[in-house]
Parts: sequence; C-alpha cells; structure tokens
Amino acid sequence: MQKAALDDARTGAQNEAMHFELATAIPVLERTPATLAALLVGLPRDWTNVNEGQDSWTVHEIVGHLIHGERDDWVPRARHVLQWGTSRPFPPFDRTFGFAEARERPLADLVQEFARCRQESLAALAALRLTSADLVREGRHPEFGVVTLGQHLATWVAHDLTHVSQIVRVMAVQYRDAVGPWSRYLRVVRGVG
Amino acid sequence: MQKAALDDARTGAQNEAMHFELATAIPVLERTPATLAALLVGLPRDWTNVNEGQDSWTVHEIVGHLIHGERDDWVPRARHVLQWGTSRPFPPFDRTFGFAEARERPLADLVQEFARCRQESLAALAALRLTSADLVREGRHPEFGVVTLGQHLATWVAHDLTHVSQIVRVMAVQYRDAVGPWSRYLRVVRGVG
Repeated sequence: MQKAALDDARTGAQNEAMHFELATAIPVLERTPATLAALLVGLPRDWTNVNEGQDSWTVHEIVGHLIHGERDDWVPRARHVLQWGTSRPFPPFDRTFGFAEARERPLADLVQEFARCRQESLAALAALRLTSADLVREGRHPEFGVVTLGQHLATWVAHDLTHVSQIVRVMAVQYRDAVGPWSRYLRVVRGVG
Repeated sequence: MQKAALDDARTGAQNEAMHFELATAIPVLERTPATLAALLVGLPRDWTNVNEGQDSWTVHEIVGHLIHGERDDWVPRARHVLQWGTSRPFPPFDRTFGFAEARERPLADLVQEFARCRQESLAALAALRLTSADLVREGRHPEFGVVTLGQHLATWVAHDLTHVSQIVRVMAVQYRDAVGPWSRYLRVVRGVG
C-alpha cells in the first residue's frame, strides 16, 4: 500500500482508498487533542467566539461536541455493536449537547477536557482487544440501518478530521474581506475549504 | 468586537468580518508549525504520501510549499511593498517549487524546517515595526493589480489555514470508502470540507 500510494502521488493518479485498520487509525485519534491545543490554546477570542453565520458553530461549540462524542458516541456505540449486534439500534446522539455551557467555558479547559476524554476512550478501545474479525461485526444505526464496527471506527477518525477542518474554516472565514482579491484563490475563506 | 462577535454567535447572526490587525494575526502565524507537528509527525506514511487524485498535492508537497512561502513570498513581498510601492509588481512565485525534493524528505524534517523558517519570518516581520499606516500602503500584484500590505499579510494567515485545511482533507478522503454510509454527513471525506 505505501509503495503503491507513493507511486500514485508521483504520477498524479487517484490513490486507492485506505481500508480501515486500527494500526493506522489510532495514530490519528491520538493526535487530535494535541493538534487542537497547538492550534487554539491562547488564541485571541476574536477567532474562537465567532461562527460562520446562521446556525453554524463556534470553536467552543465544536470542541464541546467533540467532548460529548467521547462520552456518548464512539466507544459506547462500539460496545453497543459488540453487545447487541443488529438487534438494537444505537441510542440517539444529541449533536448540540452542552453547547450553552461550552460557549461560557475557556477554550483551554475544553481542549484539556477533550484530551482527557480521548485518552480514556483510547484506553477503553485498547481494552476491547478488537480483532479484524470484530471489525466486520454489524450494528444497527437508527438512520442508516446495518453498519459495521469498522465503519463506525473509521467515522470516528473522519469525524475528528471533519471538525478540525471546520474549526480552521470558522477561523478563515473571519478574513473573507481582509484578504481582498486573494479570496478567489483561498476557498476556505469563502467557507468552502 | 469580542462582545459583538459573541452575541452574534449566540443569536446565530452572521458575524462581522474581522479587520486585519497584527495583534490578532500573529498568534495564528505563530501556531501553525506546532499545529502541523502535532497533527503529522509520527503518522503512518499511508496518510501523508497520498493525495486527492489527479494533480493534487500530498502532505509532503503541501509542507514543502509552506516552506517556500516563508522564503520567497510573505516577508519578501512585504519588503517589496515597502521598498517599491506600486512601481514594480511582485516577482512571480512558483507554487510547486521543490516538490520533487519534498516528496523524498521525511515529513518530520519538513515540519521542522517550516518551524525554523516561520520563526525567522516572524522575527523579520517584527523588525519591520509596521504601523497601522503601513498596512494601507500599496503594492502591485502581477495578476490582481493594486493590493495593500494589510491584505497581503491577512493572506499569509488565511494561506496557513487553507493549507491546514487541505492537509486534513487529503487525510480524510483516504477514508471515503471506509466510513460507509456516514460519508453523506462528512463532507470532508468527499473532498469538499
């Protein structure tokens, strides 16, 4: 895979999509708290108490949502698959849980709490001692129907990346006017990067 | 601004765009190297030697591009504005300079070199002792025509955020298949986040 991917990058061909493996997924999950700490802690609040307009989320709310995911989504649903299979759908997950509280808390506290929760989640994941065979075990998503444990865990990784991307976009759009004519080459300042 | 922005976030109204100020811009510029180090150093190469298909960039190439910007774009063009005003356009900037070399180098080296270059750039920026009056000084962009120094410096910040966003997207699209049905809610895995 590595050799092939490298060749693809060199020749400009589309890479094959990665298969989910714990060995490549966990290093991403491990890095998200430190990434958020490096990006956010100590930033002027002008960057973090703002959103992208309408009902979009502030950085505080996004980190609050990440904390809630550690508590109610990723490991709990993994356990749910192992315990119930497809016989019971996942309990619902409230995407905006705790937002009012998150808006009031210092961002450094939120990031620190997320780091602690993530560490606990990864310890809990390790304790499950999942095998490749476990990754194809099936659960029931209330909307999607049958999903595999591997898809759920891949979504944990992609969800981290989605929200890092969202945080960066929330910041970038604040400069939509400040960059002047460069906005045409910086799609993220237009809210689409 | 902070109070108003907070109220906007609460009511869901569109925030006013931020004006460029060195005091809010520099903290973002300072954080990018540590953000990239936290996100990338030590990751399996499966995440970093891949691109988004066609002639898109790998993570190695993106960090190579960031290094080159420190050397040939941001501070050099700021000096160019101060020295030449609108009388001479900026020299051209090669966006893919050094890509072949960047593909071969360990990512940790690239990130470290970027951190060193960024530190030098910020020291050079501080040495210019720019005032608010300097930020409206005009230069000439080869394509856009007249631009201000403030717009150029705001673009430096937005350019960092664009490429952090791009790196995260390059990683996320590798899981476009692995996440199964969740891809419909994770736009970044579809290359549009």
